[in-house]
Amino acid sequence: VNRQVIMQRRPDGVPLETDLAVIDCEEANLNSGDVLCQSQWFSLDPYLRSVMGGRHMSGKLEVGDVIPGGVLARVIQSDTSDFVKGDWVLTHGFYERFCKPADQLQKLDMQIDSPSHYLGVLGMPGLTAWAGITQLAKVQAGDAVLISAALGPVGATAGQIAKALGARVIGIAGGPAKCAAVMQHYGFDACIDYKADDFTAQLKSATLKGIDVYFDNVGGRVLEAALQNLALGARVILCGLMDQYNQAERPAGPNLGPVIGARAHLMGLVVYDFFPRMEEFRAYALDLMRAGKLRALEDVSLGIEQTPAAFVRLMRGENFGKVLVKLT
Amino acid sequence: VNRQVIMQRRPDGVPLETDLAVIDCEEANLNSGDVLCQSQWFSLDPYLRSVMGGRHMSGKLEVGDVIPGGVLARVIQSDTSDFVKGDWVLTHGFYERFCKPADQLQKLDMQIDSPSHYLGVLGMPGLTAWAGITQLAKVQAGDAVLISAALGPVGATAGQIAKALGARVIGIAGGPAKCAAVMQHYGFDACIDYKADDFTAQLKSATLKGIDVYFDNVGGRVLEAALQNLALGARVILCGLMDQYNQAERPAGPNLGPVIGARAHLMGLVVYDFFPRMEEFRAYALDLMRAGKLRALEDVSLGIEQTPAAFVRLMRGENFGKVLVKLT
Repeated sequence: VNRQVIMQRRPDGVPLETDLAVIDCEEANLNSGDVLCQSQWFSLDPYLRSVMGGRHMSGKLEVGDVIPGGVLARVIQSDTSDFVKGDWVLTHGFYERFCKPADQLQKLDMQIDSPSHYLGVLGMPGLTAWAGITQLAKVQAGDAVLISAALGPVGATAGQIAKALGARVIGIAGGPAKCAAVMQHYGFDACIDYKADDFTAQLKSATLKGIDVYFDNVGGRVLEAALQNLALGARVILCGLMDQYNQAERPAGPNLGPVIGARAHLMGLVVYDFFPRMEEFRAYALDLMRAGKLRALEDVSLGIEQTPAAFVRLMRGENFGKVLVKLT
Repeated sequence: VNRQVIMQRRPDGVPLETDLAVIDCEEANLNSGDVLCQSQWFSLDPYLRSVMGGRHMSGKLEVGDVIPGGVLARVIQSDTSDFVKGDWVLTHGFYERFCKPADQLQKLDMQIDSPSHYLGVLGMPGLTAWAGITQLAKVQAGDAVLISAALGPVGATAGQIAKALGARVIGIAGGPAKCAAVMQHYGFDACIDYKADDFTAQLKSATLKGIDVYFDNVGGRVLEAALQNLALGARVILCGLMDQYNQAERPAGPNLGPVIGARAHLMGLVVYDFFPRMEEFRAYALDLMRAGKLRALEDVSLGIEQTPAAFVRLMRGENFGKVLVKLT
């Protein structure tokens, strides 16, 4: 029997496992000219909470709709010469098996031993990090780069790319264990616990000469604190708002007075704009990986039935690295 | 007898006339190597409220200190070959007569019949407008440009420069009379009253294709509303925070979600950075003035004793154009 993961209820605040449901669905059969695939990995990402809340630019989900998260799958059977059995493909939609036209599948040139990295460090999160660090902020050697949600796939990749470019990189993460991993596993120069009582004082002393680049994945009071410590001409990449994804109403933002004083540039980043450059990014990232300069922690749950729980842990910030479900 | 304008009390909220005082002071005498000047015009600008509140980057004022506003003066007597009697000079500090070293005076090549314009459209406010429109936002023909505090010297000059560059220019001002003047006197294509009940609806319908450039002089709910109507790739010049200058505590700012969605760039503007380019700006602005494309409304009070009242009217938004005191 085939299964899918749907939105069973629109989340109110932090999602509950019962907001999602794993249910049986129609068996996928090969249609003429199409490709039949078996999902191997599901990608869970915070933007899905916005989609479920009806506030995401990619479209609004209705109750009963399949969760449109990223999927890494293999071709079972193909009725087009573009794909053959065994090909790895990227697509969207949490089904165990599915049949799709070729133009809805992105074929992967699997160059590494860990296919799941194509959903994280070599996928959309990695591309986001690369775009922000190299294309928008244009990080240079000697820059002081601050990165929030530093243990997540965007933040961790952004920090490692900035390190490779010669920057001093300071992370922000939640709790001592995450902060330790950010430094030990990803090689950040420092990592500050935003849950600590003296967070703003720690941030100030870690960035005494001012922050040249802040890669913001969270918004809220962490962004507010970062803006107090900008160097002249700082660049701030506005990329994510983890602090408010679980809220129905958009809260007020930081006072922008310090942005004027620092002559800072705040830039909105949407990764979709960089999809045409995915191959360029992947070549860059693969080189870094092979040189041992780019690593990726994964937080893997086993079995499609674990998808709701994995998503809830992600949205509670309880994950440790890129959240994936490995289908068994 | 010589007189000066001092801060008599640190303002609490909207300034009162008694927060300033016009008092007698020591007569100015020519010191060896220096220049003796007679003030002709005082410039009143909102940043002075921040200086009085102790929150401005140019330094903190103490009770009893002279108000460090811009002054247009003429040389009475000079003990240096750099200046001769009758020269027009720019400097800071609200004294009737003063003696200063030559390096604290900026000599003006008086090319127009209205010297006071060197404190407004041809001075710091004009330079601010030019820097934001031409250097940061890089306005181009066809851009939809929104400008708040549109009747003030920064906003009005910014709008006229944007018009000269071929942009469609929409102003925001307080009340129907100001809005009418923005359109009739400065030639803006539209002007919206932020005090109107349906301000946000009016703003939306005036900027249907989205705002390409927003020149923000006010912050607060006007900035919040502007961010809801950005075009893709919009540039937002963060220049002033009139909305909060009268407040002791910095209020929260706008939610930055729309900045991400619009891939917008927010840029802090501090005019000091552009002082080295004042002559370049003045040549540009004089050309526009002579072509009839750059005008300037002035709100003139007569006599040094009117300085406190003029400042209070400015900080209450009751002025109508650039606020000046003409010394008699």
